[in-house]
Amino acid sequence: MKVHNFSAGPSILPQEVLQQASDAVKNFDGLNLSLIEISHRSKNFVAVMDEAIALVKKLLKLPEGYSVMFLQGGASLQFTMVAQNLLKAQNGKAAYLNTGTWASKALKEAKLFGEILEIASSKDKNFNFIPKGYNIPEDVDYFHCTSNNTIFGTQMHDFSNTKAPLVCDMSSDIFCRDMDYSKFDLIYAGAQKNMGPAGTTLVIVRDEILGKSGREIPTMLNYETHIKKESMFNTPPVFAVYVSMLTLRWIDQNGGLPAIEKKNRAKADLIYGEIDSNPMFIGTAEKEDRSLMNVTFLLKDDALKDEFDAMWKAANINGLNGHRDVGGYRASIYNAMPIESVQVLVDVMKAFTKKFG
Amino acid sequence: MKVHNFSAGPSILPQEVLQQASDAVKNFDGLNLSLIEISHRSKNFVAVMDEAIALVKKLLKLPEGYSVMFLQGGASLQFTMVAQNLLKAQNGKAAYLNTGTWASKALKEAKLFGEILEIASSKDKNFNFIPKGYNIPEDVDYFHCTSNNTIFGTQMHDFSNTKAPLVCDMSSDIFCRDMDYSKFDLIYAGAQKNMGPAGTTLVIVRDEILGKSGREIPTMLNYETHIKKESMFNTPPVFAVYVSMLTLRWIDQNGGLPAIEKKNRAKADLIYGEIDSNPMFIGTAEKEDRSLMNVTFLLKDDALKDEFDAMWKAANINGLNGHRDVGGYRASIYNAMPIESVQVLVDVMKAFTKKFG
Repeated sequence: MKVHNFSAGPSILPQEVLQQASDAVKNFDGLNLSLIEISHRSKNFVAVMDEAIALVKKLLKLPEGYSVMFLQGGASLQFTMVAQNLLKAQNGKAAYLNTGTWASKALKEAKLFGEILEIASSKDKNFNFIPKGYNIPEDVDYFHCTSNNTIFGTQMHDFSNTKAPLVCDMSSDIFCRDMDYSKFDLIYAGAQKNMGPAGTTLVIVRDEILGKSGREIPTMLNYETHIKKESMFNTPPVFAVYVSMLTLRWIDQNGGLPAIEKKNRAKADLIYGEIDSNPMFIGTAEKEDRSLMNVTFLLKDDALKDEFDAMWKAANINGLNGHRDVGGYRASIYNAMPIESVQVLVDVMKAFTKKFG
Repeated sequence: MKVHNFSAGPSILPQEVLQQASDAVKNFDGLNLSLIEISHRSKNFVAVMDEAIALVKKLLKLPEGYSVMFLQGGASLQFTMVAQNLLKAQNGKAAYLNTGTWASKALKEAKLFGEILEIASSKDKNFNFIPKGYNIPEDVDYFHCTSNNTIFGTQMHDFSNTKAPLVCDMSSDIFCRDMDYSKFDLIYAGAQKNMGPAGTTLVIVRDEILGKSGREIPTMLNYETHIKKESMFNTPPVFAVYVSMLTLRWIDQNGGLPAIEKKNRAKADLIYGEIDSNPMFIGTAEKEDRSLMNVTFLLKDDALKDEFDAMWKAANINGLNGHRDVGGYRASIYNAMPIESVQVLVDVMKAFTKKFG
C-alpha cells in the first residue's frame, strides 16, 4: 500500500531512482559486481562522478569559473569549512543572516575563526519570517544566508546584491526552482532532501573567491584539495553520489528546473490554499515568506489533535508531525513528492473539518 | 558469471549483505518506504545505529569506558580530528610511526597542530617492512600507527605498550583478527574494506583521553559532539551505517573474529604459499610483516606481464593490479573474500607457470 511520505529529511526520492539504486547494489553497469564493492577510480564510477558534476552545472546554468564538489559531513561540516576557507586570517569578518536553527549554527561555528556580524534575525518571532531591508557592510569577507528554513517553513524569495561574496546554505531547497544561480559565490547543500540519500554534500564555488584567506587549512577542509582531485582526494561516498546523480538525471529528464518549479508551485498552492480557506487550520509562517518545500501549520483547536492525527495516519500519510520548535504539522513537499499525495492530505483536512468543524 | 573481486577498496562485501542492502533500498523493515527516504530519527533507523554500535563493542570485546561513533569523511578526516582532539594546545607533541602512504598523510596533517615526531620509518625500503625496536618518548600526547598498509602489503603483528595513548588507523584490517583491542585508546577505520560501503568511518575511543587538549575544536570535528549525540548530531550517512551493521551482523553470525581470523589465515597461507613456491613470482613485503589482507607480489619476468594478465582476466578475476607505488599485483583478500576465489587465482598462477615457466 502506497505511503504518502511527507518526511522533512531524509525524504522522498523518485520511485524510479530507488529502483535503479536498488538494482545497482546488486549489479552495477552489468559488471556482475555491486556498485559498492568496486574501486571509486574504476572508469564506471568516474563516469558517475563526472555526470553528477556536469548535471549540477547544467541544471543550475552555471557559467564558467565554478567548481562543483561532492563532499561528506553534511551542511554542519560546511559551517566550519566556509569560515576556514573564506574568512581572512587577519581581521576576518563576515555577515550572517539569522533565519533559524541552521543559520544560527552556521553563525556559531564561524565565530571560531573571525568576527561575525549577525546583521538581521527573526528570532524574536520564532523565525516565522525572513528579515528584509538590512544593510550588509562592504568590508566583510562574505555574506551568509540560508535559503530555506525546514523547521520554520520559511524561504528566501529574494537575495541581496552584495559586493561581498554571497554564500548560501541551500540544503533544503536546492533544485526546487529556476533562478539566476550565478549571483551566488558559494552554495552548499546536504543531499538528503531534493538530491539523494544522506551521506554527501554538494558544494558549488566560484573559483576566484578561494585561496585568499591566508589561513592554513587542514587538507580535508580545504576546498582547493577537492577541486583539484575532482572530489576523489579520498574515497568518495560512492552510493550517495550515485543516487544523487540518478536524481539529477531524473530532474533533467523531466524538464529541468522550470518544470520542477511549476510542479512545486502547484503543490504549494494546493496545500496553502487549503490552510488559508479551512477554518480549522492556520499557517505559521508569514505569507510572503512561505516555503515551497516545507509547509508548517497548526490546528486552531489543539484539543482535536488526536482526531486529526488518526485521520491522516489512516490515509497512509507519513512524517507529518511538526518540529518541536514550532509544534503542529509540517508537510514537506520536496521535488519527488507527487501532487496526488498532497491532494490526499488536503482531502483529509477537508474531511476532518466536515466531521469536527 | 561470478567475478572474483580482489579490489583493494571499496572492496568485496558478503553476497547476503548486498542482497539485504538492495532490498532495503526498495522497502525497509516492511515500512513500504525506502531505507534512504525515512528520518534518521525514526525508531527503525535508531535501532540500526544502536545495533551497529553494540556489534562493534561485542566483536572487539571492548570493556566499559569506550565510545563508538559512525562519522563521515574517511580516515583522511580522522588525520586532522585525531590531532585536534588529542594534541595539547600548549606544547602539544605526538609520535608517529611511518609505515606507508597513509601513515605519512596522517603525520603531515597532525603537524598543523603541534610537534610531531616521526619515531621510525620504513620509507628507505619503499615501506616493505614494519619498523621495530623504536622508542616512544613518554611525554607525547599520543602514539599513532597504521595497522595495515594496503598499498605495500604489510601489517603490524605486534603493538607497542606505551604509556601514551595508543592511536591506530585500522582502515584496511579492522575486524580481520582476534586480539586484545583494549590496548588501544583510539581506533579509526574507513568502512570501505572490511565493514561496508564507502561513506562512513568507524571511530572507537576510550572516553577518558578526551577533553584534555585545551583546544577550541569546531563542533563537527570534536569527538565529544558525536559521542553525546550517539552519532546523530547531524544526519548520519544512513545507507553506509545500515550496510556496515549488516556486515557486522554477518561477522557475528559466522563465529565472530576468531572464526574470521582462521579463514583469513587459511586464505593468506594459500596465496603466500603459492608465491613462495612458484619460481615465476616474488612477494614484495618482508615475510614477517606480511599482511593478511593485501598480498603484494611481482612477476620475476616482467616481459610476461601481458600473458599473465590475460590469464587472470580470462578467469574472471577483477582488481588484481598493484598500486603504482609498488607495481606488479595486489590480491586483496578481505573478510568477505571466499577461499574459493583465492584458489582460482592460485590455479591461474600454477597454470601460468606450467605454460611459460
